[in-house]
Amino acid sequence: MSAASVGIFEVRDKDLAGRIGRLYTPHGVLETPALLPVVDIARQDVPLETLKELGFQAVITNAYLLWKRMRSIVESKGLHNIIGFDGVVMTDSGAYQILQYGSVDISPEEVIDFQKRIGSDIAVILDIPTGNARDRRQAEHSVRETIARAKAALKAIDPERRVWTLPIQGGQFLDLLEYSARESRKLLGPYRLVALGSPTVLLERYDYATIIDMVITVRRILPRSTPLHLFGAGHPMIIPYAVALGVDLFDSASYILYARDNRIMTETRTYRLEDLEYMPCSTEICTKYTPRELLEMPKNERVRLLALHNLQVLAATMRQVRQAIREGRLWELLEERSHAHPSLLRAFRRLVSNIDYIMKYSPRLKGGSARGIFLFAEESLYHPRAVQHIEMLAKRYRRPNDLDKAVLIPIEPQYKPFTRSPLYRKWRGKAHIVGYTLHLGPVPEELAETYPLSQFESSLYPYREVIEETAERIANYILQQGYQHITMIYIPETWSEKVAQEVGKRLKERVEITLQPSNPATG
Amino acid sequence: MSAASVGIFEVRDKDLAGRIGRLYTPHGVLETPALLPVVDIARQDVPLETLKELGFQAVITNAYLLWKRMRSIVESKGLHNIIGFDGVVMTDSGAYQILQYGSVDISPEEVIDFQKRIGSDIAVILDIPTGNARDRRQAEHSVRETIARAKAALKAIDPERRVWTLPIQGGQFLDLLEYSARESRKLLGPYRLVALGSPTVLLERYDYATIIDMVITVRRILPRSTPLHLFGAGHPMIIPYAVALGVDLFDSASYILYARDNRIMTETRTYRLEDLEYMPCSTEICTKYTPRELLEMPKNERVRLLALHNLQVLAATMRQVRQAIREGRLWELLEERSHAHPSLLRAFRRLVSNIDYIMKYSPRLKGGSARGIFLFAEESLYHPRAVQHIEMLAKRYRRPNDLDKAVLIPIEPQYKPFTRSPLYRKWRGKAHIVGYTLHLGPVPEELAETYPLSQFESSLYPYREVIEETAERIANYILQQGYQHITMIYIPETWSEKVAQEVGKRLKERVEITLQPSNPATG
Repeated sequence: MSAASVGIFEVRDKDLAGRIGRLYTPHGVLETPALLPVVDIARQDVPLETLKELGFQAVITNAYLLWKRMRSIVESKGLHNIIGFDGVVMTDSGAYQILQYGSVDISPEEVIDFQKRIGSDIAVILDIPTGNARDRRQAEHSVRETIARAKAALKAIDPERRVWTLPIQGGQFLDLLEYSARESRKLLGPYRLVALGSPTVLLERYDYATIIDMVITVRRILPRSTPLHLFGAGHPMIIPYAVALGVDLFDSASYILYARDNRIMTETRTYRLEDLEYMPCSTEICTKYTPRELLEMPKNERVRLLALHNLQVLAATMRQVRQAIREGRLWELLEERSHAHPSLLRAFRRLVSNIDYIMKYSPRLKGGSARGIFLFAEESLYHPRAVQHIEMLAKRYRRPNDLDKAVLIPIEPQYKPFTRSPLYRKWRGKAHIVGYTLHLGPVPEELAETYPLSQFESSLYPYREVIEETAERIANYILQQGYQHITMIYIPETWSEKVAQEVGKRLKERVEITLQPSNPATG
Repeated sequence: MSAASVGIFEVRDKDLAGRIGRLYTPHGVLETPALLPVVDIARQDVPLETLKELGFQAVITNAYLLWKRMRSIVESKGLHNIIGFDGVVMTDSGAYQILQYGSVDISPEEVIDFQKRIGSDIAVILDIPTGNARDRRQAEHSVRETIARAKAALKAIDPERRVWTLPIQGGQFLDLLEYSARESRKLLGPYRLVALGSPTVLLERYDYATIIDMVITVRRILPRSTPLHLFGAGHPMIIPYAVALGVDLFDSASYILYARDNRIMTETRTYRLEDLEYMPCSTEICTKYTPRELLEMPKNERVRLLALHNLQVLAATMRQVRQAIREGRLWELLEERSHAHPSLLRAFRRLVSNIDYIMKYSPRLKGGSARGIFLFAEESLYHPRAVQHIEMLAKRYRRPNDLDKAVLIPIEPQYKPFTRSPLYRKWRGKAHIVGYTLHLGPVPEELAETYPLSQFESSLYPYREVIEETAERIANYILQQGYQHITMIYIPETWSEKVAQEVGKRLKERVEITLQPSNPATG
């Protein structure tokens, strides 16, 4: 890796506000989103070769503890040799120990100097973590002090040799986070990576919605080109949501901490081994052992296997997230997971309420992928492809000039595109024909084959808010396009009857509108 | 296994209308719900020892094909020796070949005789499958002929020696299925297992909702004590829903058919290997190989690995379902999976619309498990524990005689039970205090600690139908209990304000009701 490229971050693919990227480090290019397992050479239950085999290209270890325990040997042999890993090694600075013990016996300058001497690939200045501080003055102190230290460190860090990380503090005080992000933005350049201070306590409480707020607050201010690390968020439940908002790096000590406590992670839950009669997933460990067999083994053997299980699940989570970005299905991954735990639904609703932020970065079309989008319930109203469709109609679509009469027909799932349906054939040529369906709203006939307007799978379940928002979208379209005469066809006792009634209510004194039942079989 | 116990089916645990059971066969007791991989000794890519290691206690193979290809050797050596499996072996009768080729060159009597001679543990008479017949007369024929054959077979089958299976036909014609189930019920005794004819085409179309209808139709008529096999439903997407309705046995050829076609199953989806850049789950195969590596290997090696992957996912699905029954979380498993694909949400809604059937069998309380229930959106209104709570209030609860004034207070999630909240302390003793929350509705103070009334996790998201149904449940409670004066406390700009308004609307001319805002901090 040439010095010129260290710290470069390239975006290779995008979905929602998330991305697949490549971060250049002295020990190679790290594909993101990535999770860095925390390693502790004094007590490493899972060998580092195993981490590599599982697909982890990078690990993180604690520079302060190395300094405290074995400074001279690490300095002479080098970080990578000591831990026995030839991939990317990030070092944390000891902030966690400050959080635990109030202070550390190392100066900010020494931490920087030590990370340089041992050859860290991604290094972190010694910040003052806000942690879970409820006291605003304490939080303010951590923000001010961290920024001051970041500025002071500018003359000591060596950004041409390694990736330097700037921690952002403020915790749950969103205005402090915002201030911190604004100040940090001024320091980017020497710092190539930003890290958001640890939401570990929030994770323990399943308070994912607050983490969403924190990430969005910071990410709205930082340039898109700067990668973001979220400290201490190493559970599969939060990772897809954080990635969707633009988090690129994670670290996890939880894989081993949980294992020591007989806790095993799945993509959507944490289980205590003692509570299980059957192993909960499809990993090698879950396939080979029963909970009882694991409980009866010697503890060190059990811990090793549970840690391995947790790592396999984390590795799978990272693959799932990347695959979802490739396919343009990250929204659907979030929607699926949101019904695994009520706290995830709260998180997803928080993300929905920030849909403006998501839409700002969500790519319009995912190349090549002709796979249908999935439409479920209320949240699917905000599926980015649905929102983009409605925005496109409002901003760029104009109906054919000569047709001020429209016939609206329900899109029946068995006919794709809907221009193949008997209903379409019945009305073709007599007016401008506009299909309609839940969530997506109106689909003018010329657009019937445009992605995703005939590539979707819909529950077609008439949730009240889905009916009303769909009707609203259709009514807005009719008014915006200035039709004078509307015939709205519906199929009795289906979702389309409910939509037609709502559209009728909205338009009855504004446009000439007739609602007309139809038999789908005969058109 | 003594002859007296063959065919006995014991229910060990229950949840919704599903159960964990034990089916006694000549080769041991089969724990259900169970999935039987289809094996074909002429072309078995996955060794039977591997199936056993993966936890499959039973397999199924095709008696007709054995008869056609190697009759004498199977008759002399015996089924278990020929296939090399000492667990439970079920044989199918050749009905699938009738579906494929129109007829088979074996008589119903010969099929029965052959299965007896080779030592099948679970045998099936030669039925006439309805398959995907759209023609009613063809379906009627298959039903009549299958029943006639089942009656004729009574003198030939040996129920003391093996479990005899009675197939039920009728396909998507629910009235024919119902007729078929009623006729079949009369023949139970000699037949100890019922099998519902193959919904394979429906599965291919993701039409899970129709399968739900079919299973409920049959299961409403069959005695609970009779186990039910669902032919050809070997995909993880449908299994939890079918189990929840009372299906006990499944078979799957799809693990290998999909593998030969480069398709891999996950718990919620099917992927084509060619479409994947990253492997989608946490199995050993997904952990060790990339899609490209698999595509580049020799075909037989790839097929073996993909089949193994699919089996690991199926095995995990069966464990998940059993674990969910043990924990009383089967509803939550269905709710989670319902947002993985719109067709699963349609299936779940179909199940919700049959909630009367589910409630009839759903156990009231799962012993020991003090874990909270999960409440999400509209479907959670029908969580069996919520429905049971409402039914209990209506049927068995009476308010304290001397208190005709009630104060309703919102249950705040940070205080469990709600009798620890400042709001409760503020009002205690001044009236009968009734907490309220979304989905569960009213919770009289005496019941505050009763499961699950302080053991729940709620999204607390104010979906309109959730608000209205919650208000309806509260209003009904107030009217049923005959309170005269109601003070309804709410916290402004939260879900409780919306619920209070709706309760107010429903009660304003019937009871003296005051809505009163409150500050949760000060009570």
